[in-house]
Order: sequence, then structure tokens, then C-alpha cells
Amino acid sequence: MSRPIIALTTDFGQADGYVGIMKGVILGICPEAALIDITHDIRPQAVRQAAYILSTAAPYFPSGTVHLVVVDPGVGSERRPIVVQTDRSTYVAPDNGVLSLVLQQEPARLAICLDPADPRYRLPHISATFHGRDIFAPAAAHLACGVDPHALGPPLPLTDLVVLPSLQPQPAAEGIWQGEVWHVDRFGNLITNFRLSASACQSPVSIRVGNEQIERISRTYADVEPNELLAYLGSSGYLEIAVREGNAAVRLGVTVGDPVYIKGVPSR
Amino acid sequence: MSRPIIALTTDFGQADGYVGIMKGVILGICPEAALIDITHDIRPQAVRQAAYILSTAAPYFPSGTVHLVVVDPGVGSERRPIVVQTDRSTYVAPDNGVLSLVLQQEPARLAICLDPADPRYRLPHISATFHGRDIFAPAAAHLACGVDPHALGPPLPLTDLVVLPSLQPQPAAEGIWQGEVWHVDRFGNLITNFRLSASACQSPVSIRVGNEQIERISRTYADVEPNELLAYLGSSGYLEIAVREGNAAVRLGVTVGDPVYIKGVPSR
Amino acid sequence: MSRPIIALTTDFGQADGYVGIMKGVILGICPEAALIDITHDIRPQAVRQAAYILSTAAPYFPSGTVHLVVVDPGVGSERRPIVVQTDRSTYVAPDNGVLSLVLQQEPARLAICLDPADPRYRLPHISATFHGRDIFAPAAAHLACGVDPHALGPPLPLTDLVVLPSLQPQPAAEGIWQGEVWHVDRFGNLITNFRLSASACQSPVSIRVGNEQIERISRTYADVEPNELLAYLGSSGYLEIAVREGNAAVRLGVTVGDPVYIKGVPSR
Repeated sequence: MSRPIIALTTDFGQADGYVGIMKGVILGICPEAALIDITHDIRPQAVRQAAYILSTAAPYFPSGTVHLVVVDPGVGSERRPIVVQTDRSTYVAPDNGVLSLVLQQEPARLAICLDPADPRYRLPHISATFHGRDIFAPAAAHLACGVDPHALGPPLPLTDLVVLPSLQPQPAAEGIWQGEVWHVDRFGNLITNFRLSASACQSPVSIRVGNEQIERISRTYADVEPNELLAYLGSSGYLEIAVREGNAAVRLGVTVGDPVYIKGVPSR
Repeated sequence: MSRPIIALTTDFGQADGYVGIMKGVILGICPEAALIDITHDIRPQAVRQAAYILSTAAPYFPSGTVHLVVVDPGVGSERRPIVVQTDRSTYVAPDNGVLSLVLQQEPARLAICLDPADPRYRLPHISATFHGRDIFAPAAAHLACGVDPHALGPPLPLTDLVVLPSLQPQPAAEGIWQGEVWHVDRFGNLITNFRLSASACQSPVSIRVGNEQIERISRTYADVEPNELLAYLGSSGYLEIAVREGNAAVRLGVTVGDPVYIKGVPSR
Repeated sequence: MSRPIIALTTDFGQADGYVGIMKGVILGICPEAALIDITHDIRPQAVRQAAYILSTAAPYFPSGTVHLVVVDPGVGSERRPIVVQTDRSTYVAPDNGVLSLVLQQEPARLAICLDPADPRYRLPHISATFHGRDIFAPAAAHLACGVDPHALGPPLPLTDLVVLPSLQPQPAAEGIWQGEVWHVDRFGNLITNFRLSASACQSPVSIRVGNEQIERISRTYADVEPNELLAYLGSSGYLEIAVREGNAAVRLGVTVGDPVYIKGVPSR
């Protein structure tokens, strides 16, 4: 077996030691694992944002990667801890829809409900509030080191998995689609949920976001002047809105969850 | 020997390259080490906060882990650089009390005063202000790769190690204990220095923090309504104060070091 | 071959998953690489700041390290992606001057212009905006795993590489040199571009920064009182300005790029 990889996506931040603790737990179980941070800065309990970021990152990780995803508003309630396998990856996460987008890209072929009562694959004591440490990290470590997912709990019907609502843009009026801002990145770029094909970028289009209008899709920043607003096909296949050498989120007063309207480009 | 692990706890932040530099130094000495960040976001020179975070993380790292702890208000003065070994771990740190809490959990069995004059186990040139790079990181790397601690300097009497004052809550009035907020995490949860046993959570209790009163200890967030204040046994064994789906630090106007009063639950 | 090391310096932040994606790409090509973050918090597109941080970190990494440097205001324009080899390290970066300082320390012996059209050493699809993922990370991974730089593209004359202007302090008036603040670190310390020898610290000197004057060079923080302003030889060989137990950037109202004047100490 090649070197196992565990990729981590959480809303824990990096300041409190929570992520380090999970890594300590993992290395105690699977010492040879390579541990890669995707992000720990998902907004607290923002399941949709986490679903988006995970879906942009997962395709670039090697086949066989175990993804440990802990964005978990329901810790302490009855949401299920799950393992989902695709042809490419294994995901360990709460069953709250955080895998919705990535499973559109890589269909699930197996889902397991982790059995928190089985002491072999969890920490001896399960706290009420830190299942990342006590349940999810140990499960990910055992899977990365070769444990069969079936050993971790009973299978679930794939159709039982929680799916987030309204992931795709919706028709808003004649010829107009309403989407949303899924993520604002460090540069203030807005990533929307409009998936574009490269060919769609040639069609005439009208985009409304905040109080501004954009009338074409550019290829890259260099196509517009400094401080000019542009829309372009982002690196993950979604429509993005940016200001060249500026911050679109600040300029437009727009944030995660705000609407974006498009006329003229069909979403795919 | 299995793969050595070095866990890092500092107040260096991650923006300035200081942590990366220490890791470069470590890999030059011990290339096979796994380097795990616990946190680099300890508030500048906040030795008590670092002592707390380290004590919550260390028990979850594999036996044999070397902890490199650099929160060092005294750099350039006469505080001693030390190595402390317990049955479980090895700590490399300034002797300023930052190990006080972790050594309550894992008693020290050996303490060494690093000899900064010995060129074998430090960088060739020692700067006045970056001992993390010049002294602590090289020492941790040599220890992780198997050098005997005794080679690094003379032993110290264990009773000589600096211990932080007033770590435990103190009696404040008849039946009332005064503790403090040790840490505010990313979610605005307040971690206090009241250690609770699970059984203590059943007793009647009255907690005062900021200007609010909490009259019971909950099991988890789901036990209260959204936006309601709760106290619960945190994942590290300490009493925590939170607001469900909210931010307790902001709501209460409370921060690290502020007092918390409890009536009815003995601290253990 | 010993374990390859790839050190990353970018302005991507750690919140958006961009760095995690690059690491996923790298491990798909060179699974045994050790991946070390120098920083991802360079201010967006601040090439001078990145040049400074890289130059302070690179000397502390083992010989043979591959540095992946992505601070790239020109993505989508015609700036060249390059590989530069020195006796010590290999750098993969955009040719925008970000290597200027490190190449003063370690002279280049080979420069290659990456051929983005060669599908062997890049991702199959090259986006317009994320060359870090599509071009730079794959190149760094192949180099770390032993591919000859000449395989990645045609050589460039070393004199062709872009060099940043005015890196050294300039004469401002009789006996007065004008330098600049290159970086403000987490503690609010100002790192200037005045390189000092240890011996220069004994000479009489007068430093003006913000609206304050400093009349000597201290050895370390402990040489002044708490809250007092001091200048000292920083851990990377540059003059730094700090406030003991305080924040010099806030006190002086000074930030990256602001001028610093010195009378009496020759810059070397």
C-alpha cells in the first residue's frame, strides 16, 4: 500500500489546538499517514460553504485519499456519523449534507453508519462535544491504514444520505436564473454556484450582483482595467466575480449566501 | 524506532515565516520527523493560555512525542531553556511555567538545562531574539532523532522548575469558588479552570460569569434552545460556558483571565 | 535520494482551500514529499514582502529543498513561470522579482522557463487564474521527485530574470540613508531593509521612523524598559524596530513600505 493520505476540512480554526489534537489521535493509530489541511476556516457551522470547498479540492487529491470533514452543527444531537466511499475517495463526516456536492462529482458506492458504541474504532471515552477527536479522527485513521469500512458499522441505503436543498441555481423570471454566492475568498472574489462550460463564456450574458451589472464574461483579470469589475470562469468551473487588483466583496457589499442573477447563460 | 513526531505550540502566528523556519531547521537535523502544529496562535507571550492548550493536546499525542513549546516573553533575558521528560513525552521549552499544567497530568521524571554553549545541539550562531530557531528547534530535532537528553546539558532538580501561580480555583467566600477563563475558542466558548468530574454534573450548582447566572450543568448544546447560555463539561474535562449557535464571549463581554464564580460544585 | 522537501510561500491564505489543493496535486506526483509551509499570508500580490520572507527562511531549509513560491499579480498575463537553481535550492515561481533577494544570497546557476504547453509536467487542463495548481505545483513536485529541470523547458539567460528595484537603502541627504519597512510581524515589530553587521551595532547612530527618534542599537528587548521603543539587529540580519512588550507598528503608525532614515550606520 502506498502512503495513506488524510485530508482535513473543518470549521475549527487553527488557534485552539483542536486540529492538532485530531492529528495527534490520527498518528497514534496510523503513524505513516500524510496529513493535509484543506481548510479549517469554514465559517462556524457553515455546511454549504464546506460542501463547496470540499468539492473544489477533492478532485485534486490522489485516488485513495481519506477525507475527514468535521463541520457539525449537530454535535450532541442525533445526526449520524458516516463513512462514504466513491471510486476515488473515502469520506468520514457527519450526515448533514456536507458531502452533497462532492457526491455529485463522484457518486457514492457505499455508505456506512459509524457505530459509536464499537470501542475498536473510536477513543475509549466519547465526549459530548468533540466528536472530531473521539469518533471521526479515529475512524479516518483506521480507514487510511486499511481497515475495511464494513468493520466500522452497518451499511446505509445511499438514498438515505442527507442532501442540501437548492444547490443549483433556480429559474427566477423569464430567462433569468437566480444563484447564490457560495464562498468569498481571501482576495474578495465571489464564487457563485453557476457552473459554466468554457463554451458558454462566448455567449452574450448579463449578470446582476449587489447593485452592479456585468455584461460579459472575461477570460482573466488582465482582460479588464485595474479596479474594474469582471466575471470569469473560475478555476473550479464556477462563475466568479472579482475586481482586478481590488476586492469585489467589499465593493459590492455582498457576502456568502447573497443572490446572483444571470440572464443569457444556461447553467449546466 | 518508529517515525518521530514533533508537535509545535508557539505564539509566532503563521504569517511571518518563523514557524516555517523552525521546521526547516528541524528537517535538516531529523528529516523523517512528522511535524504537527498544535497552535501558533497563542496570544503573544500568554504563558498561561499556552499552558492550558498544551495540557489539552498532549494526552492525545502518541507516546514518545517531542513537544516544542516556544512562548517566551523572556527571550534575551536569563530564563533557562529546558528539556523535561515524562513517562509519555519529551518537552523542550523555556523554563517559564508553560509546562505547569501538563506536568500535573504527566509528572516529570527528568529535567535538563539546555547548554546553549554546546555547538553540537544548536545552530552555529545564536541570535538575541529567535531562540526558537537557534536553540529550541535544534534541540527538539536531536531529541526526536534519538539523542539522549543528558547529552544536551546538566540535569536540574525537578523542584527547581518554574510553576505558574494560582492554577486552581480559589475559595472566594463561603461555599463559593473563584476561577478564571483560560481560553476563548473560535466559537466564543469560554474554557474555565474548573475541572469537573462527570458525576459533579448532577449536583445543583450556580455559576456567575459576566453579569449572568447559570443554574445547571447541561450535557451538550442540544440540551438548551438556540441562543441560550449553557455550562457543560467540556471535551478536556473543564467547565465551559457557551451560547448554543452563538458566541458566549461576545454576549457576556468576557475574555481570557476574567473571573468565574461557582457555588455548589467542588473543584477537583 | 533522501526525503524530498517542498516549502511553500504564497499569498493564498489558508481559508479557501487553495493551498490544500496544491498539496493534493503535489502528493499525486511525489507522494513521499514533506510539505512545509513558510507562509501563506503574504499580503495579496505583495511581491516585495514575499521576497523578504523567502530570503529569511530559505537559508534554514536543508540543501535540496524545492521552494514553491506563488505570489503572482500577473497570473493570466505574459509573465513567465520559471525554475531557478542555486547551489543550495530549487525555486519554482513566476518571474516577477519575487526571487530577487534570495538570489542575492545564493546566486542562480540555472534558470528555466517552464513550458506550459508540455503536458508531462503540468495538469491536463490549465485554468486562466490558478497557475499555482495547474503549473507551479506540478513542476515543483516533479523536480522534488528527481526530474531534471532541463526537461521542463528551455534555459533562460540568468541576466534575463526580473529583479525588483531599490532593494537596498538609498542615500537621502548628507550622511543619511533612506530605507523602508519590509515587513511587520505578528508582534508589531518592523523589519527594515537595513542589513547590519554585528560590529555596526557599536557605532553611534540616529534612526528616525514615524515621528520618533531612536539613538542607539540595543542587543535585545531586555536592554530597555517595558513599553520603550528600541532598534536592534533582528534574527535575519536586518535592523528591526520594536516596543518591548508592545506593538511598534501601532505606536508609530507605520506599515509595510513606509520609510526609515538612519544617520551614522553604513548599510552593508
